[in-house]
Amino acid sequence: MNRLLIVVNVLGKMVLVFGLTMLVPFGLALWTDDGAHFVFGESIVITLGSGLVMWLATRRYQRELQTRDGFLLVVMVWSGLPAFAMLPLLLYLPELNLSMAYFEAVSGLTATGGTVLSGLDALPPSINLWRGEIVWLGGMGLIVLAVAILPLLGVGGRQLLNAEIPGPMKENKLTPRIAETAKGLWSIYASLTLVCVFAYKWAGMDWFDAVMHAFTTLGLGGFSSHDASYAYWDSPLIESVAMVFMLIAGINFATHFLVWRAKSFTPYRYDSEVSWYVMILFLSCTGLAFYLWLTGVYSEPLIALRYAAFNIVSVATTTGYSNTDYNLWPIFVPLWMLFLSGFCTSSGSTGGGIKMIRARILYQQVYREIITIMHPNAVMPAKLGRSVLASRVILAVLVFLFVYTASIVLMMLLLTLSGLDVITAFSAAVACINNLGPGLGEIGPATTYASLTDFQTWICSFAMLLGRLEFFTVLAIFTPAFWRK
Amino acid sequence: MNRLLIVVNVLGKMVLVFGLTMLVPFGLALWTDDGAHFVFGESIVITLGSGLVMWLATRRYQRELQTRDGFLLVVMVWSGLPAFAMLPLLLYLPELNLSMAYFEAVSGLTATGGTVLSGLDALPPSINLWRGEIVWLGGMGLIVLAVAILPLLGVGGRQLLNAEIPGPMKENKLTPRIAETAKGLWSIYASLTLVCVFAYKWAGMDWFDAVMHAFTTLGLGGFSSHDASYAYWDSPLIESVAMVFMLIAGINFATHFLVWRAKSFTPYRYDSEVSWYVMILFLSCTGLAFYLWLTGVYSEPLIALRYAAFNIVSVATTTGYSNTDYNLWPIFVPLWMLFLSGFCTSSGSTGGGIKMIRARILYQQVYREIITIMHPNAVMPAKLGRSVLASRVILAVLVFLFVYTASIVLMMLLLTLSGLDVITAFSAAVACINNLGPGLGEIGPATTYASLTDFQTWICSFAMLLGRLEFFTVLAIFTPAFWRK
Ligand SMILES: [K+]
Ligand SMILES: [K+]
Repeated sequence: MNRLLIVVNVLGKMVLVFGLTMLVPFGLALWTDDGAHFVFGESIVITLGSGLVMWLATRRYQRELQTRDGFLLVVMVWSGLPAFAMLPLLLYLPELNLSMAYFEAVSGLTATGGTVLSGLDALPPSINLWRGEIVWLGGMGLIVLAVAILPLLGVGGRQLLNAEIPGPMKENKLTPRIAETAKGLWSIYASLTLVCVFAYKWAGMDWFDAVMHAFTTLGLGGFSSHDASYAYWDSPLIESVAMVFMLIAGINFATHFLVWRAKSFTPYRYDSEVSWYVMILFLSCTGLAFYLWLTGVYSEPLIALRYAAFNIVSVATTTGYSNTDYNLWPIFVPLWMLFLSGFCTSSGSTGGGIKMIRARILYQQVYREIITIMHPNAVMPAKLGRSVLASRVILAVLVFLFVYTASIVLMMLLLTLSGLDVITAFSAAVACINNLGPGLGEIGPATTYASLTDFQTWICSFAMLLGRLEFFTVLAIFTPAFWRK
Repeated sequence: MNRLLIVVNVLGKMVLVFGLTMLVPFGLALWTDDGAHFVFGESIVITLGSGLVMWLATRRYQRELQTRDGFLLVVMVWSGLPAFAMLPLLLYLPELNLSMAYFEAVSGLTATGGTVLSGLDALPPSINLWRGEIVWLGGMGLIVLAVAILPLLGVGGRQLLNAEIPGPMKENKLTPRIAETAKGLWSIYASLTLVCVFAYKWAGMDWFDAVMHAFTTLGLGGFSSHDASYAYWDSPLIESVAMVFMLIAGINFATHFLVWRAKSFTPYRYDSEVSWYVMILFLSCTGLAFYLWLTGVYSEPLIALRYAAFNIVSVATTTGYSNTDYNLWPIFVPLWMLFLSGFCTSSGSTGGGIKMIRARILYQQVYREIITIMHPNAVMPAKLGRSVLASRVILAVLVFLFVYTASIVLMMLLLTLSGLDVITAFSAAVACINNLGPGLGEIGPATTYASLTDFQTWICSFAMLLGRLEFFTVLAIFTPAFWRK
């Protein structure tokens, strides 16, 4: 019980800060007089008030957080903040019910980007900016979560992280103190966002769209201010800018940080995820473009490449933008894209899925198992690049994969039990657990999650949290052992 | 190269024996004068001739088999014997092409039971008997493979096997020599088949159907001599007999052996798979019967229970019989059934999937991982029943699951790439890798695999072999390391 109150105290302070971030859309609403300033005013009052109450009511319970408190804090932040993030949506759109508003907010803060809203073009700019901002804030939290917090909690494995810091850069090791690490990573994240804003403006977006889409590009959570997503501009130049920054955001920000510090691209070369990520995406884009041309979906090879590349990069990096309804392509292509979304992005990026480092470890372990079967006494150290992997890490990765797979299967079964068709249920489970966003069938890129029932919407919200918090953080707090002294 | 010739020598002897088993349908064809005796005569000559050539041509290469030869032998037996098993089908049915005939034979010898044939009722009895016999022979091979051969090869892990022998029975440990083990297991298998024949006859089948279906019931490879499968009889009594024997065949035959030796049912109680198997099937049957009644598929609860129980037991034990087109039920039910087919049967049974013992280890490992995350220094031995599991075994099970999952995903992608729809492709991958037989969509219980293209048929044949030989046996021989001295 004490543990809960201590965590609520910290959460209270975070809710206060979160309330202040609503000043940005509030300012925009006042400036553009888009009719949403009352909504943001009320939301700010409620959020700040709640944060203050949470903080003051528990101020006797302040103490240094212990490791185990971290689990609870992480789960409460990502499930609690959406309750405040959804307020402007709930207040402005009376047709939106609680389950939908919460879904939209979770989708933002987990940088998933699946939406229940349509008529986006007609929404007040401040509302759309808020949707973009929560993705961006979510991404900010995720980077620190992945690089600094989860390893401290032992989820994902500290050793896994060490393996990620490119070998020869070890002397430049990231400072172990979370605050300083966060500061470094956030400067990179913010700077890249700023560059992205200007690039979008240069490529033809207006300032508002440039800011909103830079937010959701760097956060890899493909909310857009247009129902048509990137088909709205129909501009290869804008799509190219988006692809470059999606690809950047799919790389470990710790590696970006090292590149920035070393003023050299060498860290990318030593990163154990980047080369595979680039290679797999390159092969998938060219291969599937060829397939789309071969099957006659596009009669021009370059047009096929344009559509294949943009949508594949978007889905594989778990962003979720689209510039066409890829749901209408031969089903193999979107299935392959969903498959890529499961493992392409790097750990420490804002992307979802099991991450490339785990995929590499899994792939390698299959070969090790075959050799072990043939030569039971052979000693074969597991290595990734120059780092030796502890068997503890390999076990953790394998169990992670099992929980990941089992979650997709169970979510899919639950969604079909509640009446969804197989393709929608399967793709919803994959798209939510990978924090991708759009799926196939009823929830394809041309449609939204609005057709789901309340129950199904809650399932999807839970799936997004589960995937984003890497399963074990969430599962841990459901065990009796967690609550024991 | 030598390795190959040594194995071909052994295979040659097995082909000779296999050719002799064709005398059974040959005899029936002569006796009933069903028009297929020429076909069997030719097949026997070809098979015996080929076996003789293989044996004589390599007789200089006879030597004691080494462990590594075992991999090659197992793969060559299960991929080579179908080439002979398909001969009667190929010769009798001119419309059957090579890929279909090979599929049918692989489906039989792996005890999968998916068929490309229709008009079964009009086929000569001898042809149907041969289809049943290859399932039965396949089951015979599978039991020995699982209980005696794979553990020797280190696939599945010898330790895994030891865990399966119920604790207090250790002094009755199965004799390590394959031949004696095989003799014991085969007596049980043959005796149960005989009892099953009489039970079917008593319940209302004619002698021919009783024999043919006893073969495919104990082998858990649901070939039938009727297109309608068990709906042909529409008899709850016959269905009950089938359920009892399917349930028996889904249990480890080593445990049956211990029960027979001890003249006591205690070994079932100490078996780490039986209780979970019974419990999960009981809950699934009653739960899904309730759901079918609730959703109005059946208006009578008892009718719902009859159809739910028969089809669920049939699919979960990976038999593949049906007494109605469960493809027409709300999609959750067949999906749940496919899910069950993935893990319900016991190791050492004639069933497919990852087996209950692996499912239990996986389930337990998730909890261990959570505890390890919270208490990194806690020592928590992995146990199953009274046996302690070596970490080597846990790792092997986790890698197995990864390869299993990856195989299903890749097979599904390959099948959609070749033009199949998602549901058919997904269910074909699951049904073939689990050695279940019927899937959903185009290959549901009311249809066959005949609509697949040749390429898709070969993919499915490969998937059945991969699943049946527990992946690593097949994968091993594709590594360069295997062929090195
Ligand atoms: K996303
Ligand atoms: K079967």
